[in-house]
Amino acid sequence: MEFNKSLKGIKIYEAGKPIELVVRKFGIEPKDIVKLASNENPTGCSPKVAKAIAQNAHKAYLYPDDSFHELKDALSKRFAIQSNNIIIGAGSDQILEFISRALLNPNESVLMSRVTFAMYEIYAKQMGAKIIRTPSFQHKVDEFITSYRKEKPKIVYLCTPNNPTGDGITKESVFEIIDAVSENSLVVIDGAYMEYAQAKDKSYEIKPKDILHRPNVIYLGTFSKAYGLGGMRVGYGIANIKLIQELYKMRPPFNITTLSLIAGVEACRDEEFVKESIELHTREIKRYEEFAKEMGFEYIDSYTNFITYLFSDTQNSTTISNALFKEGVIIRDLTSYGMNAIRVTIGTKEQNSRFFEIFRKVVN
Amino acid sequence: MEFNKSLKGIKIYEAGKPIELVVRKFGIEPKDIVKLASNENPTGCSPKVAKAIAQNAHKAYLYPDDSFHELKDALSKRFAIQSNNIIIGAGSDQILEFISRALLNPNESVLMSRVTFAMYEIYAKQMGAKIIRTPSFQHKVDEFITSYRKEKPKIVYLCTPNNPTGDGITKESVFEIIDAVSENSLVVIDGAYMEYAQAKDKSYEIKPKDILHRPNVIYLGTFSKAYGLGGMRVGYGIANIKLIQELYKMRPPFNITTLSLIAGVEACRDEEFVKESIELHTREIKRYEEFAKEMGFEYIDSYTNFITYLFSDTQNSTTISNALFKEGVIIRDLTSYGMNAIRVTIGTKEQNSRFFEIFRKVVN
Repeated sequence: MEFNKSLKGIKIYEAGKPIELVVRKFGIEPKDIVKLASNENPTGCSPKVAKAIAQNAHKAYLYPDDSFHELKDALSKRFAIQSNNIIIGAGSDQILEFISRALLNPNESVLMSRVTFAMYEIYAKQMGAKIIRTPSFQHKVDEFITSYRKEKPKIVYLCTPNNPTGDGITKESVFEIIDAVSENSLVVIDGAYMEYAQAKDKSYEIKPKDILHRPNVIYLGTFSKAYGLGGMRVGYGIANIKLIQELYKMRPPFNITTLSLIAGVEACRDEEFVKESIELHTREIKRYEEFAKEMGFEYIDSYTNFITYLFSDTQNSTTISNALFKEGVIIRDLTSYGMNAIRVTIGTKEQNSRFFEIFRKVVN
Repeated sequence: MEFNKSLKGIKIYEAGKPIELVVRKFGIEPKDIVKLASNENPTGCSPKVAKAIAQNAHKAYLYPDDSFHELKDALSKRFAIQSNNIIIGAGSDQILEFISRALLNPNESVLMSRVTFAMYEIYAKQMGAKIIRTPSFQHKVDEFITSYRKEKPKIVYLCTPNNPTGDGITKESVFEIIDAVSENSLVVIDGAYMEYAQAKDKSYEIKPKDILHRPNVIYLGTFSKAYGLGGMRVGYGIANIKLIQELYKMRPPFNITTLSLIAGVEACRDEEFVKESIELHTREIKRYEEFAKEMGFEYIDSYTNFITYLFSDTQNSTTISNALFKEGVIIRDLTSYGMNAIRVTIGTKEQNSRFFEIFRKVVN
């Protein structure tokens, strides 16, 4: 039986055992494990959302309202847009998948930053498309425009603020790139961490309503980060109606769960929770900056809920990551991204203190 | 911006408002709405599962263990297979999507029964593949083999028992078809309603372990029906390791929610719930058979949790469906499948009594 050619370029994903089980091998109790690897909201989710889920748990047998009426209504109010400008996905991940499948084929290419969210490449490769990356790990306007003009990629991915580096580009820079891209190509603005960026610096805020008149721009957002719903898989794409309608052709029915729908609607009602989460984050990330200065290594100024530490040649990110892992502190080694760096999610006060303590122990 | 050609053949899905809202327009209160349209388990989900979801609601912020270790472990015990024979999907729907994307392209075709689960066609069309259907709405072995030999489709879909008709084929017939299909084509056995079929007649039971030595056969199952978890979106594919590994290349990370994973594991522990659900079903479906006889129309002998009523020329399924709808009874009109028929999910005793009452009222 012959599989599609594009599958040949994709590595087989070997599902491992849960990290918690592996760490336990080192004799570490679950309560002592500090996981700062997945950019989850350390505050958890809104207590109001947790309550709504618990109260509706018995509805697990019912398919969700497949129009996602209530959730789109809540989002349209939040962003001052119309419901039909919105498509809901199982995380904004799934919108990336719809985009790839609707637009790409093996003759085409996609453009992204040298270091950016891994799924852009994975979904593009599934369609057999060619991957083009800018030279810098940062999103640099001139590099994007030069590469765009040379290669004419079908999709340009702007991840702002960027995962896994934490830096971002201003609204002005985003629109400079959009203006340079012809209507034959799609610009994807991935704003998964936008709530953190806009709280830090208003000039980094991209408002979805500002791109609605563009035929070839889509904004992606998620409930997985600031809204604390990583486990519920709810994200959204916002664009002009025509683009949304084409992407709808790729959407499987019931693509989020009944409880995810309830959670998303309830989360939109508790903006106070998001505000408080970001306040905690803003206090705690300062400790990471100070820690880096104290330890004498570089970090990338972060517009997200994580920080990226850059090591010099005297230190190796994989060695450090493994040493932390053996002590039950789980962070993300960025070696596979070609960087001698680690990405650390900003945790609770206690988690962060433990990170600093263990880091000192293993590095010294 | 040019979208892929295959999108042209796909109708834009116009998300409507929730059915409950529409029915309320007719002045019907939510409590008086009887929805027998989506083949949900009328018993709900296992109380043990609902409790586990409620107790873990606060974990909504955590991504699930992406290896789905515990769930695969539970399934491998249930089916006497290995964990690496299993792929988990957001409903078995998503496994259908992986299959389509891994195998199909515009030069290929797929074979299915004249009337069967709608998603086979939708996912195949997304890949630009050609749809071939057998002449009968029933799965007939000779029709499948004749069409297969003539058209050499890349995928053969066997939905047994079949949705939306309710009939099934025996294990013997399934293997007769499998034996006639070359290893260049995949046979998909969609067992979404298998728990109901095997309870009614053991000769209809397909055991996933019986297909593992075949390189080109996959069995699909779901927690959405007998296990009462339609809203949680958890399904699975079972096949030989090589096939599972290829499909894994199409799987997005975290493709079920944290609470869906917990629900699935807990559901595997409560087989008693499934047994009781099926016992209720077995009692109640008899009332639908008797009702049809009394009213003087045909029905298809059902191996699922729904029944299909076939009308003669003197009655029109759309007229009947609309009349029921205005009274708050929601069932599935099969006109779009080319049948003058309705599909009715077997509900609770009270729901079914109400269906009979309203049906009598609107038909007489």
